[in-house]
Amino acid sequence: MNTTHSDISITPFPDALAEAGLQQFYLTPPLVHCLTNEVVQSFTANVLLALGAFPAMVVEAQEAAQFSAAADSLLINIGTLYRARAESMLAAITAANQSATPWVLDPVAVGGLSYRTDFAHHLLVLKPAAIRGNASEIMALSGLTAMGRGVDSLDDSRAALPAARQLAQQTRAIVAVTGAVDYVTDGERVFAVSGGDKLMTRVVGTGCALSAVVAAFCALEGDRLHHVATACWLMSQVGGQVAQQVAGPGSFIPAFLDGLYNLRC
Amino acid sequence: MNTTHSDISITPFPDALAEAGLQQFYLTPPLVHCLTNEVVQSFTANVLLALGAFPAMVVEAQEAAQFSAAADSLLINIGTLYRARAESMLAAITAANQSATPWVLDPVAVGGLSYRTDFAHHLLVLKPAAIRGNASEIMALSGLTAMGRGVDSLDDSRAALPAARQLAQQTRAIVAVTGAVDYVTDGERVFAVSGGDKLMTRVVGTGCALSAVVAAFCALEGDRLHHVATACWLMSQVGGQVAQQVAGPGSFIPAFLDGLYNLRC
Amino acid sequence: MNTTHSDISITPFPDALAEAGLQQFYLTPPLVHCLTNEVVQSFTANVLLALGAFPAMVVEAQEAAQFSAAADSLLINIGTLYRARAESMLAAITAANQSATPWVLDPVAVGGLSYRTDFAHHLLVLKPAAIRGNASEIMALSGLTAMGRGVDSLDDSRAALPAARQLAQQTRAIVAVTGAVDYVTDGERVFAVSGGDKLMTRVVGTGCALSAVVAAFCALEGDRLHHVATACWLMSQVGGQVAQQVAGPGSFIPAFLDGLYNLRC
Repeated sequence: MNTTHSDISITPFPDALAEAGLQQFYLTPPLVHCLTNEVVQSFTANVLLALGAFPAMVVEAQEAAQFSAAADSLLINIGTLYRARAESMLAAITAANQSATPWVLDPVAVGGLSYRTDFAHHLLVLKPAAIRGNASEIMALSGLTAMGRGVDSLDDSRAALPAARQLAQQTRAIVAVTGAVDYVTDGERVFAVSGGDKLMTRVVGTGCALSAVVAAFCALEGDRLHHVATACWLMSQVGGQVAQQVAGPGSFIPAFLDGLYNLRC
Repeated sequence: MNTTHSDISITPFPDALAEAGLQQFYLTPPLVHCLTNEVVQSFTANVLLALGAFPAMVVEAQEAAQFSAAADSLLINIGTLYRARAESMLAAITAANQSATPWVLDPVAVGGLSYRTDFAHHLLVLKPAAIRGNASEIMALSGLTAMGRGVDSLDDSRAALPAARQLAQQTRAIVAVTGAVDYVTDGERVFAVSGGDKLMTRVVGTGCALSAVVAAFCALEGDRLHHVATACWLMSQVGGQVAQQVAGPGSFIPAFLDGLYNLRC
Repeated sequence: MNTTHSDISITPFPDALAEAGLQQFYLTPPLVHCLTNEVVQSFTANVLLALGAFPAMVVEAQEAAQFSAAADSLLINIGTLYRARAESMLAAITAANQSATPWVLDPVAVGGLSYRTDFAHHLLVLKPAAIRGNASEIMALSGLTAMGRGVDSLDDSRAALPAARQLAQQTRAIVAVTGAVDYVTDGERVFAVSGGDKLMTRVVGTGCALSAVVAAFCALEGDRLHHVATACWLMSQVGGQVAQQVAGPGSFIPAFLDGLYNLRC
C-alpha cells in the first residue's frame, strides 16, 4: 500500500490504528489549555467538548502558566496574536515544558506577516510536541520553498511534505500539513489521511479546531505520530460524512459537532 | 413538599412563581451590560436576545463605567480575566453601585487559579446582587470546604449548599449553585430547581449564559430570590426539553435558542 | 417608481443591479481584513466565507498595517473598542489609505458613549469608503438630530436619511442607514432596500456582518453606491426568506449561512 515519490514513503493511515487511538482517548479525556485566536474560541471549545475532552482558556500570563502546568496539553494558535497574548503564550509554554505538558503550535498565516513569523520561529526552539498548519504555513516555518517548483495552490499539502519532514527533523515535533489530503510525519515515517470536504474551508475554525484536537491527542501515552494522525483522521472522517448531508456551511457546524459527539456510540 | 437535611429547608421552586417572573420580565426586557469571557460572548448575547433582552458588551474602562450607569444590570464573568479587562470590570462595578444598577458575579474557575481567585474575593465586598457558580467555585469563594467530607463530583451542587448559604449571608447576595439540581438561596430560604440535561455540559457557555440571564432577571423589581430562581428555572426547563429532541450538542445550540425565543408564545 | 419626500428622491434598488453586482463579486471574491468587535468575529467570518470571500482578522498594530496594505478591503467596527485595538485600527486605516485599500466604518453605539464617539468622529476625516449604521448611529455621527421631530424608534432609518445624506456629502463616503428599510446614499442619489425580518434583530451580529459584506463589496470596481446597495440587498433578501422558514433565531443562524452560500447556485 505504500507509495514512493521523491524518496518519501507515504502510508495511508490505517483505520484500525485510528479506532484504537480513539478508544484510548475516551478512556482518559484530556484537559486542554487553549491559547487560541479570538475568532474561533467558541467553536474550538465546542469541538473538544463534543469529543468528550475538557477545554479551558486561561489567558492572563501568570494564570496561563499555572494552568498549563496542570493541564494535559496546551494549544498555541497565533491567528490573532498581539503582545500581551504573546507574553501569556510564552509563560504557558515555559510552564508546560517544566511540567512535561505537551504543547502544539498552529502557525496561522505565518510567512507574509512579520510579527507572527518572528514569534513562530522563536517558538520552534521551545520544543513543540506537534505542529499543524497548511502548506504555505509549514513551508514558511521550515524555511524551505517548494523544492524548485511552484506550489499549485495554498491547499497543496503534498508539495509541502518535504518542508514538513525537514521541520519535523529540525524540531523533533510531529508535523501535520493539512489540505485535501493531510500528511503527518515525524521526519521519517509519513502517514496520509484522506477525507474531509471542500465545504470545511467555508467554515471558520475547522483548521484551528483540528489543531486543538491534535493538542488533545498529544496528551495520550504511546506513539505520538499515530495520535496526531488519529486527530486528523477523525476530523476528516466526520467532516467528510457530514458535508455530504448538509445544505451548506451553516448547517455543517451543528451537524459536525453532533457527528463528533456521536463518534463514541 | 419541603425537605430538611442538615438543618437546611429546601423548597422546590414553584412553576407558578417562575411563570409570573417570566411575564414580569417580558413587560420590561432589560438592557444587560455583559463583561464576560472571550469564549462565550456570542452565545451569551444570543441567549439574551432570544429571551427578548438587550445585551451589550462595552469594554473600555471609561465607557464601561458610563454604560453600566445606564444599563438595567451588569454581568461580571471572569473566565478569561486579564489586567485591562479587570480594570474595566472594577470601573463598571463602581459605576453600577453608584447608580443602583444590580450586578452579578460568575466566578469561573475560582479556586485553583490565584489571579482570578484574589480578584473574585476582592469583588465580594463590592456588593454583588447575585453570584452564580458551580459547586467548586461557590465553595472556593465561601472559604468553606465540603463540611468534613469530600465532594463527590464537580457537579455536586447539593454538597455546596452550606457554602452557598454562608456566602449569601456574608455578601447579602442571592447565591445560585448550579449542577444537576440548582440551589438558589438568600442565606435563609433555599429553592431547588430541577431539569436541565447532561448534554448541556458538552456545549460551551451554558453556565455563563445562565449567569447573564440571572443578571437580566436581577433588573426586575420584587423578590430577587424568586427572580434568580426563575432564571435558573427557564434555562433548565428549555435545556431539558431541547436535549431530548436533538442529536447532539451541535444541534442543541440552535434548538435551545429557538426554545428560549418561543417560551414567550 | 421614485418617490419624493422632504426634497429627497428615493429609488428602490433594482434587483437587476444587485444581481449584476453579485456576479461581479463572484468573479473576484475579495480578501477582507476585519477589525471588528469581540462578540461577532466568528459569525462575521462565517458570513464572508459563505459568500465566497476570504475574511482575516489580524490585530496587532504592525501586522494590521501590513495586512491592510495587501487586503482588498478593510472593516473597522468599534463595538468593543479599547485603546490597544484603536491603535491597531488607526495603523490599519493609515496603511489602507496609502495602498488605496477601501475601508468601511461600522460606528456601533456611537452617540451615548464618549470614547467611541470621539474616536469615530476622528475616523471620519480618514476617508472611509462607506459607513454602515442604524438610525441613531448615523444621526449621532452626522451631528444632525432628527430634523425637528422625534425619531419614532431606533429602527426608523427613514428619519435618519437627511443625516445620512449630509454625512455622505461631508465625508464623500457611501452611507447606508439600515433598519426595516435600508437607505444607501452617496449624498445625492438614494437607494432603498427592502426585505429582511425583525427576527434578525434577535441574532447578534447581523448588522455587524452586513458591514463586513459592505466592506467586501467596496473592493469591487465600478459604482460604489450600487455595490453597497447590493450588499444590503443580498443580506435582506436572504435574511427575509430564511426568517420565514425557521422556528426562531437559533435555527436562523445556520439557515442564513446556508442561504448565503447557496445564492451562488
